[in-house]
Amino acid sequence: MSPASLRSAFPVFDEVAYLNSGTCGPVAAASVEAAREELHIAAIEGRASNYYERLIDLHGRLRSIYATRLGAGDVNDVALTSSTSEGVVRVLEGLDLGPEDQVVTSVDEHPGLTGPLANLRARFGVQVRAVGFDDVADAVGPATKLVAVSHVSWIDGRVAPLDALAEVARSGVAVLLDGAQGVGAIDFSVEELGCTFYAGSGQKWMCGPVGTGMLWVGAEWRERLPAMGPIYMNLVDAGAGLDAVPHADARRHDTFTLSAEAAAFAVAAHDTVAAHGGWAAAAVEAADRAEAFAEELRARGRDVLPRGRTTLVSWRDEDATAFVQRAAAHRIVVRELPGRGVVRASIGAWNSEDDLERLLALVA
Amino acid sequence: MSPASLRSAFPVFDEVAYLNSGTCGPVAAASVEAAREELHIAAIEGRASNYYERLIDLHGRLRSIYATRLGAGDVNDVALTSSTSEGVVRVLEGLDLGPEDQVVTSVDEHPGLTGPLANLRARFGVQVRAVGFDDVADAVGPATKLVAVSHVSWIDGRVAPLDALAEVARSGVAVLLDGAQGVGAIDFSVEELGCTFYAGSGQKWMCGPVGTGMLWVGAEWRERLPAMGPIYMNLVDAGAGLDAVPHADARRHDTFTLSAEAAAFAVAAHDTVAAHGGWAAAAVEAADRAEAFAEELRARGRDVLPRGRTTLVSWRDEDATAFVQRAAAHRIVVRELPGRGVVRASIGAWNSEDDLERLLALVA
Repeated sequence: MSPASLRSAFPVFDEVAYLNSGTCGPVAAASVEAAREELHIAAIEGRASNYYERLIDLHGRLRSIYATRLGAGDVNDVALTSSTSEGVVRVLEGLDLGPEDQVVTSVDEHPGLTGPLANLRARFGVQVRAVGFDDVADAVGPATKLVAVSHVSWIDGRVAPLDALAEVARSGVAVLLDGAQGVGAIDFSVEELGCTFYAGSGQKWMCGPVGTGMLWVGAEWRERLPAMGPIYMNLVDAGAGLDAVPHADARRHDTFTLSAEAAAFAVAAHDTVAAHGGWAAAAVEAADRAEAFAEELRARGRDVLPRGRTTLVSWRDEDATAFVQRAAAHRIVVRELPGRGVVRASIGAWNSEDDLERLLALVA
Repeated sequence: MSPASLRSAFPVFDEVAYLNSGTCGPVAAASVEAAREELHIAAIEGRASNYYERLIDLHGRLRSIYATRLGAGDVNDVALTSSTSEGVVRVLEGLDLGPEDQVVTSVDEHPGLTGPLANLRARFGVQVRAVGFDDVADAVGPATKLVAVSHVSWIDGRVAPLDALAEVARSGVAVLLDGAQGVGAIDFSVEELGCTFYAGSGQKWMCGPVGTGMLWVGAEWRERLPAMGPIYMNLVDAGAGLDAVPHADARRHDTFTLSAEAAAFAVAAHDTVAAHGGWAAAAVEAADRAEAFAEELRARGRDVLPRGRTTLVSWRDEDATAFVQRAAAHRIVVRELPGRGVVRASIGAWNSEDDLERLLALVA
């Protein structure tokens, strides 16, 4: 792992201490070039069968990449989505929950999960129980059909109680992990986590374009989770008209459309990290660096929120809005968690000691 | 209207007689440049609040563009989708149809409509009745809750029986038009059509990127059609957690994510046609040119399928596959309609006499 070499692949670091991969990862020069090349070909040749052949090839490569990062045994258990939220919605809408059913979630979830849960409650009368992030497994009761919770909390970088959740899944209650801050950030395997569904982002720690993501559906639900739509690419034989059936695997959940240029951007992003030390090493590097940074904050008397071995470091600041603005003026990009008085730094293997020292200088 | 000036904005025409806008429109040089510029900014500055400010601005411009092309009275009756199919799915899933309900459609619909209808039938027992394209209004019966049909047939360019469908809508049965071959190709206003929902494509006659489209929802269903999800951008206040509610207009149906670079591509495409004679003139030019071409085919004894005043011309060919391949070898792009022995040419204002003469030379 050579962080300097990895870092040089991302133009943002030429001037900016970019510590916001938890929103969107840095964009690799190779990604811009790959997307530009696809656009160029489309402009010169037109977009007919040639375009769709390229698109299908790129979809296959991206699905394989996501399967590898998720540690999925079967590449076709992974759907290409446009965001973590889309994966969440496809699971929630597919489960056909009603007034007798309860979903357990935490009080610290992202609108990409709470929005759809609010809708299930308002539209179908589904019971939604929100408890502390560490207590989600214990809150499971007889009416619980699903536990839906972050793998890694977007608030503070805590890791969900995975062993207890695996036990929940084994007991027959589905477990959906929101992996927005998981996939690409930390090393794991969905098969070992023991969850039922895993929804992840493409534009955050995978450094892909806005509009990419993935949904893993385990064997238990592979052929049971209904397809939304399904439309052309989700069908075994689109020409079968009213007799068409969806794929018997996660391809039935592929998003409505993913352009060749977006897929090429995503593939190039993955290959960039792979070529500069690899993803597993990057996860170790990032976790070490994040913990060291948290320690520096604590040493300076800062109230760092409890966290796990992840890439997020959050701390309290009475005026988080002002801090984030002041940082931006110094070309340091971190974010505020609105309404919480909390600043969050996202630390990747692409961040240097210098990035963190610049940020520390502002905190102190 | 200067077709030569318009044509010069699209690099594909330097060498290719591209007659396939019914699949994907030509890509403007300005679109490639606009997307590349957004990617460049994202790579240099990172993707934090700056990126989302640009994205929101571009979304607003694109929504306004789509509203204008649709002739929608209220810009917020238009949702940004990723495809015609997504708009169709959002309507079909939102109507909560069951075994007592019937959907009338035609035997000539695209998989983007037949796939979701097959699913409604298999999953919820919804009755689906497929009749001739011209007969959809007459087929409405007491159980009919929705007529779902193409505005312009993707098979042959016929126009749906719009007056009769407007009468159906006035009688209280919802009418969903699949406008994949309508919006951007022909000039119309959804308000005057009298339909209930209109789903359209961004990547075809609007010349946007793959992954764009729109859904218009008329006043009757504005606040009633349930949101899918809804997720961050669909919510009035995403920070309201489990109490969040969707927008009271079509923004509740905006697709999960639409990147700044894709939106910039789409806006630049629209502005390109607007700057070279305008959309209304382009529609007239294309329709005239398509009818003249159909007449030439007929004069050569070809069996042209019945068509309307649209941009599609289809004719029978015993070996349509071979014809399309032979055309491609001559750098002429048309498409086959699989299983029908039909070749389809898509004719836009950007196509020249020379394009059509090259194609005619091959047909004769």
